[in-house]
Amino acid sequence: MSLEEVYQEIEKNKEDSIDILCELLKIPSMAAKKTGAPEAIEFLSKIFEEAGFKYFISETKGNPVFCAEMNVGSEKTLLFYDHYDVQPEDPVDLWDSPPFEPAIRDGKIFARGVSDNKGEIICRLQAIKAYNKIYGKPPINIKFVIEGEEEVGSPNLEEFVNNDKEFISDADGCIWEFGGRDGDGIQQVYLGVKGILYLHLKTRTIGRDVHSGYTQFVDNAAYELVWALSIIKDRKDKIQVPGFYDNISKPSAEDMKIIKEFELKEDLLKKMYGIEEFRLGLTGLELKKKYFLEPTCNICGLWSGYQGPGGKTVTPNEAFAKVDLRLVPGQNPKDLIEKIRKFWDENNFQHIEITEWDGYEAAKTSIKDPFAVAVIETIKEVEGHEPIIWPMVGGSGPMYLFEGVPCISIGCGHANSNAHAPNENIFIDDFVVGMKTIAKLIHRF
Amino acid sequence: MSLEEVYQEIEKNKEDSIDILCELLKIPSMAAKKTGAPEAIEFLSKIFEEAGFKYFISETKGNPVFCAEMNVGSEKTLLFYDHYDVQPEDPVDLWDSPPFEPAIRDGKIFARGVSDNKGEIICRLQAIKAYNKIYGKPPINIKFVIEGEEEVGSPNLEEFVNNDKEFISDADGCIWEFGGRDGDGIQQVYLGVKGILYLHLKTRTIGRDVHSGYTQFVDNAAYELVWALSIIKDRKDKIQVPGFYDNISKPSAEDMKIIKEFELKEDLLKKMYGIEEFRLGLTGLELKKKYFLEPTCNICGLWSGYQGPGGKTVTPNEAFAKVDLRLVPGQNPKDLIEKIRKFWDENNFQHIEITEWDGYEAAKTSIKDPFAVAVIETIKEVEGHEPIIWPMVGGSGPMYLFEGVPCISIGCGHANSNAHAPNENIFIDDFVVGMKTIAKLIHRF
Repeated sequence: MSLEEVYQEIEKNKEDSIDILCELLKIPSMAAKKTGAPEAIEFLSKIFEEAGFKYFISETKGNPVFCAEMNVGSEKTLLFYDHYDVQPEDPVDLWDSPPFEPAIRDGKIFARGVSDNKGEIICRLQAIKAYNKIYGKPPINIKFVIEGEEEVGSPNLEEFVNNDKEFISDADGCIWEFGGRDGDGIQQVYLGVKGILYLHLKTRTIGRDVHSGYTQFVDNAAYELVWALSIIKDRKDKIQVPGFYDNISKPSAEDMKIIKEFELKEDLLKKMYGIEEFRLGLTGLELKKKYFLEPTCNICGLWSGYQGPGGKTVTPNEAFAKVDLRLVPGQNPKDLIEKIRKFWDENNFQHIEITEWDGYEAAKTSIKDPFAVAVIETIKEVEGHEPIIWPMVGGSGPMYLFEGVPCISIGCGHANSNAHAPNENIFIDDFVVGMKTIAKLIHRF
Repeated sequence: MSLEEVYQEIEKNKEDSIDILCELLKIPSMAAKKTGAPEAIEFLSKIFEEAGFKYFISETKGNPVFCAEMNVGSEKTLLFYDHYDVQPEDPVDLWDSPPFEPAIRDGKIFARGVSDNKGEIICRLQAIKAYNKIYGKPPINIKFVIEGEEEVGSPNLEEFVNNDKEFISDADGCIWEFGGRDGDGIQQVYLGVKGILYLHLKTRTIGRDVHSGYTQFVDNAAYELVWALSIIKDRKDKIQVPGFYDNISKPSAEDMKIIKEFELKEDLLKKMYGIEEFRLGLTGLELKKKYFLEPTCNICGLWSGYQGPGGKTVTPNEAFAKVDLRLVPGQNPKDLIEKIRKFWDENNFQHIEITEWDGYEAAKTSIKDPFAVAVIETIKEVEGHEPIIWPMVGGSGPMYLFEGVPCISIGCGHANSNAHAPNENIFIDDFVVGMKTIAKLIHRF
């Protein structure tokens, strides 16, 4: 029995693994659109049971959380956090093949959710199956928590965590959902995630749209919203809400060391996103500090009035926006939403209604934690060189709910995976190497 | 021979007049959708020829202008300005009967364009036919200019005016296209229209949408647009573009007198549009001054990024807006667009592109002009009481092209005519009284 045999088993089952992944990818499990959750749960139940896991489905106010466990009586437990929901497929006409009909081209699998994060679910499961085929059972206890609302901000994961506290708290480490290689093909390791506050805004001023010849009489909902958004953040990206920066934790010396050493591949980023110059002309350490250490305020969507051809002259009575704020350690979304509401009220923006919101805090794991060391060493050995260490990623995840469990994010995506965008994809090779990494990690850990 | 006989003739021909109007209403002549112009021209040619007019069709880069003339060798000429195009019928599912199948219910005719402005075309033509039946011929020369692109901002009317200058310039007065009764049934007279500058805006920052976890690196197109719009106008509705108010003509003592005497039916307006309080809490003279004398800046439409359900986290690379500015006498749209462009450039809003624009100046006629006096006196006599005099209406029209010709707007609509909206309608009684007013006006003038 050797890991080499496990690797051979993984290679042998490659086509099987791709088939299982494609079956999962065909299920349009979009939390935002409230589709596909029951089908995804049913499919997960089937494949985890076949792999020898015990599973249970934890109901919440929203989509249920799928949990699976393989207890071998070890003192150590490794947890995987994943999600079976995916981003909406819009704009669907920019896809080269239908988002929920997986297609293989140029050594890549294309489908919505393949990189975020159905690819990792199957990669992790298949790695464990291959390991067990050779060794009979894993050397440690394995658990999976696969939720169904990550892409809408995990509004009900806290309910799950409160209901099933021990399921999480006795884990010695957690492999987080996402990750992959950078533009040069180097594997990356993420030690933390930002928090988030997601706001759904609605402005309604008067009873109905008005011919714009009468605009003097009424409040234009679109203009009210424009003014309200313009005072939240200035053009230097400083958020103007009083107290917004009050509770932010000072970065540690260890954080600053990682940030300084971190090689931000600016040219690669520019090419990838079609950026001529980074925002505010920043570069080098200033740009890295902005990225890793500052909270953000971002308009995700905005709409009001007439959007068709030609020139309708109308004063809209309703306007809408979706805004996300990425939070850094120390910031609490509930505290911030109260500050934002107060700021708008004090500036006479009572028209602006926060119709819905969700969010959670940031979280991170120390690079010196034994679990972090194990993950980094494993990747170094499988890949043959050092991974890139991200002290914190710009994206968010409900990692704070796993308090006390060191969480590290790795995965099988890459720089052009197009997560959240058309033509989402992963390389088949990365999918396979990912399995080997997981197999080696459970062996070592 | 007496006007009374003309009135009897009008009553006698009422059903005929409705039939002719319905024929015209069946033609879906929408400039925005490029439909029905040839059919409308053909129908107008037929009915004006039958009525004894000479007509010609003046070609332009867009829809042709239909012109008709009845020259009796008089020293005086009365001109009518109308348009055969109508607003698009959308949203079609809110109509109680199909928009291009005229229906009669509750003493009203329902169809797209019946109040704006096909009803007036037929009302005016039928009045002249009845007058001629009794008197043999009109006492003055009569001309009609009926264009086909009023609802899309009359982009080619200037070309027509330049080509056929004398046709317009030798008129002693012009009855403009629109008008009607207020919510209390009182006939209204409009002495002028505002100018307009309509802007189509596009912001494009980077190559593609970006996951909002990377928003720190890029310019958010929606936020750029929000900031650009927010600096154009402050929350007191003062437009901040340098020089914007420079050339505005000071209102005359006569204007101020009309405005002071004008009874703005505030309660009626509030009820009609579902307004709790007028913008900025204004009322009385301050509100009237704002309405009649100030230019506006209004967002008609706004869109960017994700507008679907749930919470997509994206930094949009494109954002769009449609903005109309209503201009007062002295302001020129070409001058203003240069000032707006310069203002944005000086504030580093090069991202904001004005992809398209059109516009024209305001125009108005003095209440002391003999033609204005004639129209007002005629209405007083037909109606039995004073009409409401609007020194200027909040809407716009290409009246400035008729420079030197006093223009007055009256019509057969009413406060709930739903021009530009579903279930557009006029009262049959108003249509008939309108004919009597026109007959009396040509008799007197």
